[in-house]
Amino acid sequence: MQFSSSLLENAVNEFARLPGIGKKTALRLVLHLIKQDAPAVAFFGETILKMRREIKFCHRCYNIADADICSICANSMRKQEMICVVENIRDVIAIESTQQYNGVYHVLGGIISPLDGVGPDQLSIEPLIERVKKEGVQELIFALNPTVQGDTTIYYIQKKLQPHAIKATTISRGIAFGGELEYADEMTLARSLQNRVPVQNFVAY
Amino acid sequence: MQFSSSLLENAVNEFARLPGIGKKTALRLVLHLIKQDAPAVAFFGETILKMRREIKFCHRCYNIADADICSICANSMRKQEMICVVENIRDVIAIESTQQYNGVYHVLGGIISPLDGVGPDQLSIEPLIERVKKEGVQELIFALNPTVQGDTTIYYIQKKLQPHAIKATTISRGIAFGGELEYADEMTLARSLQNRVPVQNFVAY
Repeated sequence: MQFSSSLLENAVNEFARLPGIGKKTALRLVLHLIKQDAPAVAFFGETILKMRREIKFCHRCYNIADADICSICANSMRKQEMICVVENIRDVIAIESTQQYNGVYHVLGGIISPLDGVGPDQLSIEPLIERVKKEGVQELIFALNPTVQGDTTIYYIQKKLQPHAIKATTISRGIAFGGELEYADEMTLARSLQNRVPVQNFVAY
Repeated sequence: MQFSSSLLENAVNEFARLPGIGKKTALRLVLHLIKQDAPAVAFFGETILKMRREIKFCHRCYNIADADICSICANSMRKQEMICVVENIRDVIAIESTQQYNGVYHVLGGIISPLDGVGPDQLSIEPLIERVKKEGVQELIFALNPTVQGDTTIYYIQKKLQPHAIKATTISRGIAFGGELEYADEMTLARSLQNRVPVQNFVAY
C-alpha cells in the first residue's frame, strides 16, 4: 500500500500489528478515526494508555484487576471456599456472563503443554496449591478446555494436592444446547453417553 | 459481558466503537495489548493521538497530507495537468498501489446522492472546477464507482465545465482480470461488449 502521508501510514501500521487486523481493515479503522471529533479520538487513545499503565493482576486469583485484589475476590457475597480454575481471563468473563456462578476464580495463565514449551512452572499452579491449603477451600471446579492438555493440567494439580481431601469437579461435556446429534464428534457423543444424567420425574432410573 | 475491571471494560468499549469491531473482537485486541510491553502500547496510543492531532487535508486536492499540500501535489515529477477524480482517500491509495498513474488527484469527499442527502455543495466539486480553469488542466480521469450516483456526479461536473474544452475519460469497466464470464452481471457484460478493444497483431479489425 502506498500512502501519501506518513502520519496515516504509521497509524495504519500500528493498527495492523493487532491480531486479526490486516492492512485494509487497519486503514478503514484509521480513516474512521480521522472522521471523528478530535476529543473523541483523544479519549480513545488515552483510555488505552491509561488501561495499560494502571491495569493490575489480582494477587490472589491472577484475574485482571483495578486494585491489588480483584472485585470478585473482594466481594464478600461470593463463596470464597469454592474456586473455579480457568485457563485465562477470557474464560472468567465468559463464566461471569452466565451469571450462574457465585464462587471465586483462579486464573492459571495457560495450560500444561510440553509441545508449546509450557510447563507447570510458567503457570500459577503453585499459588493455587497454596490457596487450597491455606484458605480452607472446599471445592475446585475445573473449567478448562476439553483437550489432552486440559486433562493433563487437571491430573497434575490433582497429584500435587494428593494428601489433601478436597471435592473436585469439571464442568460437564456433552452435546451443546441446540446442537444436533448427527454433527457431534464421536468423543463428545461417547462422553455424553458415559456422563448421562437422570431425566426428572421418571419413576424408575 | 461482565468485567471485573473498569479499566478493561472502558478499553473494550472504546475498541467496540470502531466499525466492524464487536465486543468479543474488542476484548481480544485489548487482552493482546495487555500482554505487550508498556512502551509498545504507549507508542500505539501516542501514534493515534499524534495522527489525529496533526493530520491535514491537502488544500489543493483534499487528499490526506502531513503538510498544507500533499506529497503527490508537491511532487514535481508528476503530471500536474492530469487530474484523477476520486470519491475518497481509499481510492487514492488503491490507485497509487498500482504504480501505474503519474498524474495528480482530486478527492471529492463523496458522490452526488440525493437519497443520502448528499448534494454537490457538500463535495469539493467547486474547487475542482476552479482548478481546471486556473491550472491549465488537460485531462480529467474519472475513477468513480460505476453506479448511478457515480454517473450523475460525472454528468454534473461535465455540465459545470461546459464552455471549457477538456479531455475527459473514465476508467474502463468490464470483466475483472481472472473473472469468469458466466458469473458477471448483465450490465457489466453488456458494457464490456460495447467498449470492446482490438486484439493486438490481428490483421483485420
